[in-house]
Amino acid sequence: MRALVLERIRELSLRDIDLPLAVGPGDLRIRIDTVGVCGSDVHYYTHGRIGPFIVNEPMVLGHEAAGTVVEVGSTVTGFRPGDRVCMEPGIPDLTSRASKLGLYNVDPSVVFWATPPVHGCLTPEVVHPAAFTFKLPDNVSFAEGAMVEPFAVGLQAAAKARIAPGDVAVVIGAGPIGIMVALAALAGGCSRAVIADLVDEKLAIAGRYPGITPVNIRREALADAVARETGGWGADVVFEASGSPRAFEGIFALPRPGGCLVLVGMPVEPVAFDVVSAAAKEIRIETIFRYANVFDRALAMISSGKVDLKPLISHTFAFQDSIAAFERAAEGRPGDVKLQIKL
Amino acid sequence: MRALVLERIRELSLRDIDLPLAVGPGDLRIRIDTVGVCGSDVHYYTHGRIGPFIVNEPMVLGHEAAGTVVEVGSTVTGFRPGDRVCMEPGIPDLTSRASKLGLYNVDPSVVFWATPPVHGCLTPEVVHPAAFTFKLPDNVSFAEGAMVEPFAVGLQAAAKARIAPGDVAVVIGAGPIGIMVALAALAGGCSRAVIADLVDEKLAIAGRYPGITPVNIRREALADAVARETGGWGADVVFEASGSPRAFEGIFALPRPGGCLVLVGMPVEPVAFDVVSAAAKEIRIETIFRYANVFDRALAMISSGKVDLKPLISHTFAFQDSIAAFERAAEGRPGDVKLQIKL
Amino acid sequence: MRALVLERIRELSLRDIDLPLAVGPGDLRIRIDTVGVCGSDVHYYTHGRIGPFIVNEPMVLGHEAAGTVVEVGSTVTGFRPGDRVCMEPGIPDLTSRASKLGLYNVDPSVVFWATPPVHGCLTPEVVHPAAFTFKLPDNVSFAEGAMVEPFAVGLQAAAKARIAPGDVAVVIGAGPIGIMVALAALAGGCSRAVIADLVDEKLAIAGRYPGITPVNIRREALADAVARETGGWGADVVFEASGSPRAFEGIFALPRPGGCLVLVGMPVEPVAFDVVSAAAKEIRIETIFRYANVFDRALAMISSGKVDLKPLISHTFAFQDSIAAFERAAEGRPGDVKLQIKL
Amino acid sequence: MRALVLERIRELSLRDIDLPLAVGPGDLRIRIDTVGVCGSDVHYYTHGRIGPFIVNEPMVLGHEAAGTVVEVGSTVTGFRPGDRVCMEPGIPDLTSRASKLGLYNVDPSVVFWATPPVHGCLTPEVVHPAAFTFKLPDNVSFAEGAMVEPFAVGLQAAAKARIAPGDVAVVIGAGPIGIMVALAALAGGCSRAVIADLVDEKLAIAGRYPGITPVNIRREALADAVARETGGWGADVVFEASGSPRAFEGIFALPRPGGCLVLVGMPVEPVAFDVVSAAAKEIRIETIFRYANVFDRALAMISSGKVDLKPLISHTFAFQDSIAAFERAAEGRPGDVKLQIKL
Repeated sequence: MRALVLERIRELSLRDIDLPLAVGPGDLRIRIDTVGVCGSDVHYYTHGRIGPFIVNEPMVLGHEAAGTVVEVGSTVTGFRPGDRVCMEPGIPDLTSRASKLGLYNVDPSVVFWATPPVHGCLTPEVVHPAAFTFKLPDNVSFAEGAMVEPFAVGLQAAAKARIAPGDVAVVIGAGPIGIMVALAALAGGCSRAVIADLVDEKLAIAGRYPGITPVNIRREALADAVARETGGWGADVVFEASGSPRAFEGIFALPRPGGCLVLVGMPVEPVAFDVVSAAAKEIRIETIFRYANVFDRALAMISSGKVDLKPLISHTFAFQDSIAAFERAAEGRPGDVKLQIKL
Repeated sequence: MRALVLERIRELSLRDIDLPLAVGPGDLRIRIDTVGVCGSDVHYYTHGRIGPFIVNEPMVLGHEAAGTVVEVGSTVTGFRPGDRVCMEPGIPDLTSRASKLGLYNVDPSVVFWATPPVHGCLTPEVVHPAAFTFKLPDNVSFAEGAMVEPFAVGLQAAAKARIAPGDVAVVIGAGPIGIMVALAALAGGCSRAVIADLVDEKLAIAGRYPGITPVNIRREALADAVARETGGWGADVVFEASGSPRAFEGIFALPRPGGCLVLVGMPVEPVAFDVVSAAAKEIRIETIFRYANVFDRALAMISSGKVDLKPLISHTFAFQDSIAAFERAAEGRPGDVKLQIKL
Repeated sequence: MRALVLERIRELSLRDIDLPLAVGPGDLRIRIDTVGVCGSDVHYYTHGRIGPFIVNEPMVLGHEAAGTVVEVGSTVTGFRPGDRVCMEPGIPDLTSRASKLGLYNVDPSVVFWATPPVHGCLTPEVVHPAAFTFKLPDNVSFAEGAMVEPFAVGLQAAAKARIAPGDVAVVIGAGPIGIMVALAALAGGCSRAVIADLVDEKLAIAGRYPGITPVNIRREALADAVARETGGWGADVVFEASGSPRAFEGIFALPRPGGCLVLVGMPVEPVAFDVVSAAAKEIRIETIFRYANVFDRALAMISSGKVDLKPLISHTFAFQDSIAAFERAAEGRPGDVKLQIKL
Repeated sequence: MRALVLERIRELSLRDIDLPLAVGPGDLRIRIDTVGVCGSDVHYYTHGRIGPFIVNEPMVLGHEAAGTVVEVGSTVTGFRPGDRVCMEPGIPDLTSRASKLGLYNVDPSVVFWATPPVHGCLTPEVVHPAAFTFKLPDNVSFAEGAMVEPFAVGLQAAAKARIAPGDVAVVIGAGPIGIMVALAALAGGCSRAVIADLVDEKLAIAGRYPGITPVNIRREALADAVARETGGWGADVVFEASGSPRAFEGIFALPRPGGCLVLVGMPVEPVAFDVVSAAAKEIRIETIFRYANVFDRALAMISSGKVDLKPLISHTFAFQDSIAAFERAAEGRPGDVKLQIKL
């Protein structure tokens, strides 16, 4: 099977590789149509590792995918060949203690596409459990279907925030995930979102959505902007989606008394955390690890028109140009939100 | 002070009446601009009572109001004459046990406009605590400001549902409150709402909003419609906003396993409640009593454009035509959602 | 395999019956030591059905069991022969939508011991998934292990109540489940529990536990007792554990404003439910269906001494006297809480 | 009025001082019986400040108090002279946005006993709002009543944790607050608590309570102890009650996947916070600021016998020996949990 293989750090090839394609009783075989390029894919390409996950063997990249069912396992109900689908890329042990609690994303034994040593889905066909495959509504394209995975991160953040209707959100960081978080927060009940970044081009993309107020923190202190936007009360929910240690300086000036901070970004090193300032407002802090039980919700929101992810697809590459797609992604052009590869 | 006075059942007059206008230290004096006609006002007019609340003395009607601050109490901060505002019509004892818990709406000692024996606000000026008065954003009109109160009921229902982003809602009843609930549910995070009624004209008004699917239950069983819309899984949240005892027949076929039922309508008599069916899906049932801590949220949603209540204002009467407004409201024309009176 | 078989309504036999004993890869084979007699077992015996579940074929009874592992499936980790265990009697489809949410108890495809047509565990050996089997701590006996299942119902009710530390509980009904609920509520954070019944003997058993105040509602109105015990404020949580339709008359006089009602009992017919009274206090109503994710919690509480279930074991029968056990259970002696059968 | 006055850093006097004793309409005048010595009182004595709160003027110390009502304001109901009471020492603006939400403890305008420039209660008589005064049940002594304030901190932590019945807790720090937290966690629904400290004498006091397992982290790594006690799964709730920056090293090894960390201790400087480790388990982090709405719960728990705080009262001083009490408290003897002063 042809696939985009990360041979080692900074070396990609589009070549044949042996991938298991046996369809178990609960599985589907799926012909891949579209795969998005994720920051983590790019990070494996450029750094060869993310934290404890190290690329020691050639690994197929890609985990944001949509496609078409071509074969259905013997015990599967609810799917048939020809169904257009997208896939949740993590497969937990459903009998684990975490999974039984509904927290299958934090099951320590979860296996996740394109996380070493597990191969990803940048290849024409994959086998995947039906339990983690979701039908695309008729009005949702493959390209949108492949956006469900990154949007799911935003939805997980929004779900953890326990948004009350009308909450005001602040999102720190206007990268792809920051924008996803802002859109999920708005669709998830916030009345509006202030989004902060250093780069005007990113803010401009975010600011095209109604309800999003961009703030360039080179020009205005975020705390001032939030105070102005909330009459001095503070935001109900603050999403940290930059992963920058500097974002944590004075961060507790942003939420209101009794507000919430959701940590989405992943700073490489421990950050300086001001417990006293957090406590003075009795802030609740939530963390997220990927997502659980949100793919169906994401599809419902895209299908109903509550969220429009299409403007975030910056460019689509053919499968044979996959390496070019990764090279461009590695450049990190500020106007690029999501690059996709069409098989 | 001139006021619309309910003299007794079925008898209204627009006449002078003595109303206390002393401005206490925490109070505002407010010139009323617009007052909405609420179903409860009409019910007092037509029935002379609502449950234990009986109109024994002449009572000024009206509790959905917006206006302009004309005088500010000595200890009030944050308001000045000329501020455009709307008012939360219930005044609790803030030192009560319920109020300290944040549940001031269920404080047994709450005093509420146009709930016997308390006068309402259909009169040119009122005195009201600053703590229950809210500034209108510049882009929110008085007419919209007077819609905050009924929308607050919808928001309270949506808040109690604890909507997770992307939830599917069902709303039973497409009267003014049902529509408010559906709009609050959508703005509060639902991906879409199925709304059910017997009257096509009401459904047509609701159905003009994106995300709302009207179902006339004369033509299709609601359970069938919900199964079709949710792939047989059921709705995440069901809002009962009709108050009809018939709505409770088979109601637990509508929510999904682990779903929620929010009771907004107020059936006069006890209803038949099938505990076994509720338990088989482990349904959570929430009730609401007016609202607490949602006026600021309502204003944020109206101001940000997440909710557009203007299409629901069916007609506006001059103050001198107040009695005509109530007569029309008492007719219950299916195409009328909200009638307002402009002072 | 010898087993206690319900042949048809009112006819039990202790006889050989074919039961599948193939140990799948995730299964354990368990030698049963003790089985409790549950009200539902007795109901099948005396009525031949519970709601839609009808005994059409001979069925082995029993679902409250503890025993010893004798064989371990090929993929099981964490168990070995000789482990003392108790078993959660429902087996859901872990790939279902409900199970992935952590709500495996409301998965419509759940299979449950001694619920027609599924055989129970009153037989010397059973095969059961390791994922629903729990090791007994050293200081927890088999007899206590077989009490985990009924106590789990109480724990599920306590968990759904979302008890805040120090809450005051009211439990309506002092039968086995009512007592389990009261104990779970106390161990789960309540400061005390008022328990109500018509039968002094049952109340006497409950009242032996510290923190439980028994009230015989033949002699005192429960609303009066609750008002007295709570200074007129009401109970934080009310558990309805009688299943009697009469319990619903005036039930909303019992909780405090903003309080909670948990429905544990299962009235055969719909009950009269006063929506207006519930709404006036904004009561939250929770329902339960068996339990999920509480067996480990139950064992932790028994082992740590927070809950002592031993006084509730009224009598232990030998396996060969199983039919006598059921006959006595069917008598419904007021002093009997739990009868157990030792294999 | 005679009072224990902190003149300046390290200088106390027991002398007359002018204190306002006018009884407002909602106030009570209370004769003080017992006052506990709190770590914050001692910190003002030894350091002259806590964070931004600086003792610039002579200030009466003390905020953990119980006494007897001697005069009742004109609008107060529910109290009369002779009532034995304890007092919640913070007085918020009940009309503030935070207070209306039930979060009066984080109202920025709260006024708190013995927090500069507000005088405390180590004086024979105080005036206090009835809304923040609580009657002692007959079986609760003044000494216990004066323990409610520090126990309330533990209860706030336990409430924020949202303990599910049977949770396993870890408490870092066996000082007075750590022990209070452990007791609140146990009474609030935990099955057991592991408590960690460096000092055996403190651990010995904690370990006398059933359900508490002391761990001296000089001799065993806490992560090892928690893994052993939880079968490798981790604690449901971890309470950080030491305020030591070192406690944050590796702290996310302690909770289970999906678990909770409650920050009770107040490190002076920002701590190093490992976002990635927190996120990998999707840990929720809660902070507390004093307490709200828990005094009545504390009294219910003490009165019902769920919590016994008497063993924590290490020594009682006469009012004239108040300075000696503070000198001893400043020594920080490891066997001293709570010193009290009886007026």
